Amino acid sequence: MVANKSPEILFLKQEDVIKAGVLDMKKTIEDVETVFKMYAAGEVQQPVKTLMEFPDPITKDRGRLVVSMPVYLGGKINRAGVKWAAESLENQRTGRLPYGIDVVILHDLDAAHPVAIMDGTLITAMRTSAASGVAAKYLANLDSKIAGMVGAGVIGRTAIQAYLEIFPKLEEIRIYDLDRSKSEGLAQEFHQRINIRVADDARQAVEGADVVATQTTTRKHFLQKDWLKSANFYAQMGTNEAEEAEILQADVLVVDDWGAISHYTPGYLAQLVDAGKLDPSRILELKNVVSGKVKARTDPKQHILFKSMGMGSEDIIVAERIYQTAKAMGLGQILKLWDTPLWV
Amino acid sequence: MVANKSPEILFLKQEDVIKAGVLDMKKTIEDVETVFKMYAAGEVQQPVKTLMEFPDPITKDRGRLVVSMPVYLGGKINRAGVKWAAESLENQRTGRLPYGIDVVILHDLDAAHPVAIMDGTLITAMRTSAASGVAAKYLANLDSKIAGMVGAGVIGRTAIQAYLEIFPKLEEIRIYDLDRSKSEGLAQEFHQRINIRVADDARQAVEGADVVATQTTTRKHFLQKDWLKSANFYAQMGTNEAEEAEILQADVLVVDDWGAISHYTPGYLAQLVDAGKLDPSRILELKNVVSGKVKARTDPKQHILFKSMGMGSEDIIVAERIYQTAKAMGLGQILKLWDTPLWV
Repeated sequence: MVANKSPEILFLKQEDVIKAGVLDMKKTIEDVETVFKMYAAGEVQQPVKTLMEFPDPITKDRGRLVVSMPVYLGGKINRAGVKWAAESLENQRTGRLPYGIDVVILHDLDAAHPVAIMDGTLITAMRTSAASGVAAKYLANLDSKIAGMVGAGVIGRTAIQAYLEIFPKLEEIRIYDLDRSKSEGLAQEFHQRINIRVADDARQAVEGADVVATQTTTRKHFLQKDWLKSANFYAQMGTNEAEEAEILQADVLVVDDWGAISHYTPGYLAQLVDAGKLDPSRILELKNVVSGKVKARTDPKQHILFKSMGMGSEDIIVAERIYQTAKAMGLGQILKLWDTPLWV
Repeated sequence: MVANKSPEILFLKQEDVIKAGVLDMKKTIEDVETVFKMYAAGEVQQPVKTLMEFPDPITKDRGRLVVSMPVYLGGKINRAGVKWAAESLENQRTGRLPYGIDVVILHDLDAAHPVAIMDGTLITAMRTSAASGVAAKYLANLDSKIAGMVGAGVIGRTAIQAYLEIFPKLEEIRIYDLDRSKSEGLAQEFHQRINIRVADDARQAVEGADVVATQTTTRKHFLQKDWLKSANFYAQMGTNEAEEAEILQADVLVVDDWGAISHYTPGYLAQLVDAGKLDPSRILELKNVVSGKVKARTDPKQHILFKSMGMGSEDIIVAERIYQTAKAMGLGQILKLWDTPLWV
């Protein structure tokens, strides 16, 4: 056997990732649902993500961050990987680059060697709303007709895609964004699939909706509980979008990963628990709902709140699908860490 | 101004990293010394590294691991980065690939975009022993003549390089490795610079030496305190190489990063503290010694033990030098995360 001292790394730029199917929301929802089941079955190792935040030079508020999300997926997948994610308000201001930019590395444990490095920007966008969709599938009334959304950025777009998959009877999406042109853009983009109404403010978008999703970058609470009276399901995908009263009034509270959410005290749920206002035993984890270990909804009238922080395992399972597809299709660029390693 | 929607990433394979000066031990020691000073000055953000270990399929012991080490270096450097490090006993068995293989990503915080992806394998090898060297510079008697070493792998080689820089009067290095041919290889490789004696066992290598360094992958304690009686300095670079009595007899105990070492209970120091056998207030951090905040050695007869776990900041400061040098020299390969990002 010829010694292979120089394994290949497949580098996939965003265009390759697209060709390999990253924009397929149906498959992404399947991936994310699978990973929640694996997580429940103990097949996922997912240490708490490491987050570093930095002040924005203009707003002086937290405006730049980098996050490291290492994961191991066991079972048949047997893949270690890391997503290195970054966000910058500067990109939101200039509009030149995505607000969030991500890189994923997939790793072979036996050889201790990377097998793929790829753009993770669209993976993040797709898996984030796929998680919102999986949560909706298990927590919302599936005959919901009206969705109210706040945030018409990248995650707003994928949230529309996810809700179109999950809610077969969806008739209308009402959407609000500080930048009205973004809402109008999405209304135009999806007009053949769904009627999207551009709202004048957040209240107009969510009041009267059956299901609500917020996906904004704000750090301020803006969503009032009274606006959500008719909603059977609310997915809070941003950091702290709903006021305290909304969190506390929810009949059922479900999170994607309590370990991570409770670790980061700027997060509202952790603060409410620390302050003794919220009994942590009330908080369910989505993996246990998806796997059937616990039942979340017991009455169609319940108002169920889902709070997501995002999990690296969602990224790695999607990235693995993209990698396998790209390899089969011959996409991407071969990189090598060396021609011959100097010291073995 | 033309919008640049497609920033460049410089990909550096190991051969580029070598051309950019990674094998310069003198500069690596300067880098690592600088980063300890920055760390003491509060200019380094270094969350506890995230480590996942997996059983080796043959030995059933921990034999494969991946580690994520995110870091921000402030001051004039202003660079975020992550080292994704992996190790596999399988590579040690086959001899086809390095035991440890690493990738470094350097990141621009404003653009939330990577600027470089490079092989970090040699960076790790160099910075690990540079840290041993910096520790020796501040903790050992610098007129030491005989060094005893256990472990003649990659880190053994760089340890020799580092000690040649730090100890001007060094006359002899005694080295032991389970694989004698490795020790013989290093003796041959360095024979023009230093007399290296290949030892028959660990005791022969370290007994009577002025300074001692161990850099092995074993999980078993094998170093007995009586063997180290003559040593003014001992650098334990592996996990748990010295027996409990050696740790407890040291006059001064210094670590690279107590936050990380105390976090991982398989580590011996953390276990001894947890068991109440070791007073944690006895443990000094190297950054405070390097910055002059605390004095470690007060008597040349003291036996000072340095325990290193390795810090991501050491990697990122070296990687930043390599990146800047490579850019100036026009080395490497340009990658792009996309031609045009789909969603901005």
